[in-house]
Amino acid sequence: MSTTPRSPSLPDAAPDDGGFDPQAVDRAILRRRAFNLRWAEQPPDVIPLTAADPDLPCPPAVRRAIVEYAAGGSFAYGPAAGLPRFRAAVADHLRDRRDTPARPDDVLATDSAASALFLVARALLAPGDEVVIFDPVDFLFAASTEAAGGVVRRVPFTRGGGLDLDRLKAAIGPRTRIIALCNPHNPFGRIMRREALEAVAALAEARDLIILSDEIWADIAYDGPCPSVAALDRATSRRTVVVGGFSKTYGLAGLRIGYIRTDDPALFARIFAASHAEKTAYGAATLSQIAAAAALRDGQPWYRAFLKHLRGVRDRLCDRLDALDGLRCPRPEATYLACPRIERADLSAEALTARLLEHARVAVVPGAARWFGPGAEGHIRLAFATARPIVDEALDRIESAWPRILSP
Amino acid sequence: MSTTPRSPSLPDAAPDDGGFDPQAVDRAILRRRAFNLRWAEQPPDVIPLTAADPDLPCPPAVRRAIVEYAAGGSFAYGPAAGLPRFRAAVADHLRDRRDTPARPDDVLATDSAASALFLVARALLAPGDEVVIFDPVDFLFAASTEAAGGVVRRVPFTRGGGLDLDRLKAAIGPRTRIIALCNPHNPFGRIMRREALEAVAALAEARDLIILSDEIWADIAYDGPCPSVAALDRATSRRTVVVGGFSKTYGLAGLRIGYIRTDDPALFARIFAASHAEKTAYGAATLSQIAAAAALRDGQPWYRAFLKHLRGVRDRLCDRLDALDGLRCPRPEATYLACPRIERADLSAEALTARLLEHARVAVVPGAARWFGPGAEGHIRLAFATARPIVDEALDRIESAWPRILSP
Repeated sequence: MSTTPRSPSLPDAAPDDGGFDPQAVDRAILRRRAFNLRWAEQPPDVIPLTAADPDLPCPPAVRRAIVEYAAGGSFAYGPAAGLPRFRAAVADHLRDRRDTPARPDDVLATDSAASALFLVARALLAPGDEVVIFDPVDFLFAASTEAAGGVVRRVPFTRGGGLDLDRLKAAIGPRTRIIALCNPHNPFGRIMRREALEAVAALAEARDLIILSDEIWADIAYDGPCPSVAALDRATSRRTVVVGGFSKTYGLAGLRIGYIRTDDPALFARIFAASHAEKTAYGAATLSQIAAAAALRDGQPWYRAFLKHLRGVRDRLCDRLDALDGLRCPRPEATYLACPRIERADLSAEALTARLLEHARVAVVPGAARWFGPGAEGHIRLAFATARPIVDEALDRIESAWPRILSP
Repeated sequence: MSTTPRSPSLPDAAPDDGGFDPQAVDRAILRRRAFNLRWAEQPPDVIPLTAADPDLPCPPAVRRAIVEYAAGGSFAYGPAAGLPRFRAAVADHLRDRRDTPARPDDVLATDSAASALFLVARALLAPGDEVVIFDPVDFLFAASTEAAGGVVRRVPFTRGGGLDLDRLKAAIGPRTRIIALCNPHNPFGRIMRREALEAVAALAEARDLIILSDEIWADIAYDGPCPSVAALDRATSRRTVVVGGFSKTYGLAGLRIGYIRTDDPALFARIFAASHAEKTAYGAATLSQIAAAAALRDGQPWYRAFLKHLRGVRDRLCDRLDALDGLRCPRPEATYLACPRIERADLSAEALTARLLEHARVAVVPGAARWFGPGAEGHIRLAFATARPIVDEALDRIESAWPRILSP
């Protein structure tokens, strides 16, 4: 998954990086375009390592596909569940690269993975139904559950040991409908191992639960592919709803494109009906689907070069943060999120975030309950999908401000 | 609104039509791209006059804006309520061309007008709350109300007299929250006059109701601008939520882009919160917003040429349908929808639709309760935003099949 064998007949050819350029961060464009706590929403001297969204431009193959489609001039109504080209590209991707059973009919185009999580909750939960989620984990799991009138039960997810299965078992009650996995895990960057997934699958089978597997980070994995719970066996695949997107791997957050995959036709029908897509009230822009399909079909050389770049940035960033007095920053196995733990009792995540902004002019996300649940307290999160000079500049600033940050 | 004065210094210049080409219907592209009962979903020999979606390509200015934006390479997260450029373009459009009070902050980007209607219902209705809607009217009003747990009360909307105010008054009860206008009216193509709007506004004021004004057709008006209820006075503006889109006037249905306008900040906040846009779970693709803003800012010459073209098609289509034995087809004042009434008791709308498909290979929408409410019975609807040769071909086929259609 990480590298492709070179063609033996072209030993001297340059490696095909799909046009990936590790320096191609254009701050002027980002100041106009990158919202959600990033460049367009920060003072000009601040480096934002906030929302998980790359500073690097998207694959050239994606831009080419957009231009080619726009030349056709027609932006008529697309099909309610998604363009055939999109659904086929996602199904191929899941089957060929993620070992996940998927036919085009199993794929629903959604306007982002976030929207997909809200849709799944609305489709599958009655008021009072419970969803077991990790603590900490991305805020969208709790937000989508609560928007649907559901109740979250949090199970600790530790950086060292992953999921605590006894606690998971204890959290499942008569109203539990869904176990929600975030794999790879945001914010800790850990991958759930096959054994853990098997244990979750056995529990879901025993209690007849849906497994919601948010795999938006699955392709940003540094030590080989991240296994999917849907790939375990046929029965588990049937009860697993996979959610994916294109914002993390390909930088298409603004195009609002994601998907839901379920190979249970009845489950698909429930989710599709709840979406109101058939009434044209839900769905993804056709042009965004074209862009995403091109990313999966033609963006793989770019993706491999991007992943290699990220590995280098990860190592440098985590090692330098880890060397700071009072911070412990292990390298994530996956994601471009560093999530150092603060080892000083007198320094809260909110205080460190505020001081990093004030003294280093670097914006990060605090490990606050509102973002990740109570289990994130004592951590901050930094997103590092940017050019090395920008990360270096941020690290230089943090290191030089560190004494003032510790003793303000 | 219909024509622009020519520059006196260029008396011999060709009229600026913004690149509008009345022949530029590419059936090969439409067969791949036009879904929702249209070319891509019909047998190859069928002419679809079904969903209200133009066969003609979108303004060249829109394509140029898409290509230019894509060249920037960044599709980062947009702002939750919409891009500043989009919100300003919509506010300017509403203020300058529709006399409607609107600042950029009053505009929320939505992924289609349909999605906007569902959002407004979800935001403003509690289960059991009532919405007064027209009968007939586009199915989205009932569908969005019912999806939110609300109840619709239908008030007859006649082709001749428009809205029956006594019936409207009688339909308002203690649980009524919203009066929903479709102005111009789909499927009848009528415009509500200022006096009717004033009467609705007075009722809304007396009973403290929200007015939901779906104005997606407002710019396709053949005899001068369609007045907006939001333009009446300040108090009415405050209680009016305007919904608009870009699918009808500019052919951007596939880009999923529309908007909600309310100049009541508390109402805006309620709708915004219900959308979950701030959690990235709702919104319009930035590229779609760029396209829509370009349509409003740079697509006006194209729009005027398109409207002129539609007037000619309307006249020919309605006059030829009206000449058929058993059909009465007045010309719509607005929209590109013809809605002939069937004057034969033995011919239902569903039967006529089936026979038009079988004998003339022309697809239309039946005036069925599921599409428009019971008040549409005895009508069919034909969308005519296409090239004249295609309309002529459809009319030739219908005329030649008409004897068999009447006596199968």
